[in-house]
Amino acid sequence: MFTATQRFRVEWAHCDPAGIIFNPNYYIWMDSGTHALLQAAGFDLIGNTHSDPLFRGCPLVASNMAFKKPLYFGDVTLLTSRVEKFGKTSFVVTHEFSKGEDPQPVATGSEVRVWGYSDPEQPEKLVARLLPEEVKLMLSVDKTVDVTV
Amino acid sequence: MFTATQRFRVEWAHCDPAGIIFNPNYYIWMDSGTHALLQAAGFDLIGNTHSDPLFRGCPLVASNMAFKKPLYFGDVTLLTSRVEKFGKTSFVVTHEFSKGEDPQPVATGSEVRVWGYSDPEQPEKLVARLLPEEVKLMLSVDKTVDVTV
Amino acid sequence: MFTATQRFRVEWAHCDPAGIIFNPNYYIWMDSGTHALLQAAGFDLIGNTHSDPLFRGCPLVASNMAFKKPLYFGDVTLLTSRVEKFGKTSFVVTHEFSKGEDPQPVATGSEVRVWGYSDPEQPEKLVARLLPEEVKLMLSVDKTVDVTV
Amino acid sequence: MFTATQRFRVEWAHCDPAGIIFNPNYYIWMDSGTHALLQAAGFDLIGNTHSDPLFRGCPLVASNMAFKKPLYFGDVTLLTSRVEKFGKTSFVVTHEFSKGEDPQPVATGSEVRVWGYSDPEQPEKLVARLLPEEVKLMLSVDKTVDVTV
Repeated sequence: MFTATQRFRVEWAHCDPAGIIFNPNYYIWMDSGTHALLQAAGFDLIGNTHSDPLFRGCPLVASNMAFKKPLYFGDVTLLTSRVEKFGKTSFVVTHEFSKGEDPQPVATGSEVRVWGYSDPEQPEKLVARLLPEEVKLMLSVDKTVDVTV
Repeated sequence: MFTATQRFRVEWAHCDPAGIIFNPNYYIWMDSGTHALLQAAGFDLIGNTHSDPLFRGCPLVASNMAFKKPLYFGDVTLLTSRVEKFGKTSFVVTHEFSKGEDPQPVATGSEVRVWGYSDPEQPEKLVARLLPEEVKLMLSVDKTVDVTV
Repeated sequence: MFTATQRFRVEWAHCDPAGIIFNPNYYIWMDSGTHALLQAAGFDLIGNTHSDPLFRGCPLVASNMAFKKPLYFGDVTLLTSRVEKFGKTSFVVTHEFSKGEDPQPVATGSEVRVWGYSDPEQPEKLVARLLPEEVKLMLSVDKTVDVTV
Repeated sequence: MFTATQRFRVEWAHCDPAGIIFNPNYYIWMDSGTHALLQAAGFDLIGNTHSDPLFRGCPLVASNMAFKKPLYFGDVTLLTSRVEKFGKTSFVVTHEFSKGEDPQPVATGSEVRVWGYSDPEQPEKLVARLLPEEVKLMLSVDKTVDVTV
């Protein structure tokens, strides 16, 4: 599957009074991982968000994570993101956070997302559309791209 | 079980370019829900964090959520938090977000947490200790408290 | 001037490894304060954001804060927000954060905001429009409303 | 003066319902800029935070920003940070955010910070100590380092 990697530095801002990363930051980074995955695979998510007023990105339906080891201020973590499964209107992205040479991830998670549009009749209403075949193909290419800014 | 409820207003800050709540905010609110649950049940989590340099709060081991309906800028959501299960050194907290009179939650989630301390020999190292019986008792009382600020 | 107050509880999520509030949270709360101020004064900011696709809220032009005393996990702070000055297309909102009975604020700040719309010809472009007289009047009424959720 | 630069990508997570960056993110990035500046200049801020339980980093006393042009989802911004002025126990850091080849910054800001320690007698109390001469020297070296992760 198409795979996107990116590095994040754990900042002072990401840490809590226990001196370790505040875990919701991982969910924010998974969101970044999925957006970068689509963009790098060739689907212009950013352009579509700007040009198509009905396109709502890929709203989350569910997410989860397991936290194995803490990260500390100054650590650099590598996020590896790829699609695990395609549904009709949805897809599952898995995310793994690792640190240095340690083969054990510090945290792993997954997201279920839908291909989201505003209902043209009621723009506030979100509807899931069929996941385009071309998007599935792009995300299925066996290639790894680093998307660190 | 002891139950804590609290209201949150969905702010401009919580919403994304799709005009709906950015989902990681729910994880931040679940964190608040668990802390408030312990505090309201009678365990002085805040005081212990200040007074006991080894106490690390209740670090997350795993978390998950399902998002049923979006929330919009200006919505008020009610979070209901309670313990679902006690382990030896861990416990599971379930969280439900609802809106207005709608009996269907807009989002539901759970957290697995441990009773965390710094290892006295290596303060950076986190160790899980036995969940105190008195804490289990406090969290098992059949009572609901609103902890909205 | 019309004044909005609201309480915030300093959560674990708001604190950094020094055990005190991470200051950018104050800027997020000032943003909430200004939105709530307009809403409570009678301008339906939330409704307009939903109903008028060109209305962009009140984008920030500048902001600043002075931090006098730290806040700690579990503290409750009261934010007091009111307009200090009206310009043609802009206005200045002052914000004061206090704690308990202490007459000395823990932090004070201000924001310069404009009355923002999308340019109908280039929706991505932001333009400042004349601040409506009725909005000035609403914000000038001598009244204090608590907008805590 | 010693200068640190770093790139940030504007993520979906950083944008608000107006489709532009939510400004408090700039304050979070300035915080990162100052920490990275000290670290890159040769003062091991991260190590000291871990090894010296009394060291509290460099708490903010005041901050401000002016926002000239919005940033959009997918934009990459370059932050340039350097000390502008040294006080006895404090220092002022200026930060400039730019985009692409545009010589006009999109946003500029500054922070006043102190050299912060916990009072050994009352660990909760924050005291400002004399800014070490060696730190001033490190931050005065005429050199630019990119600290992008």
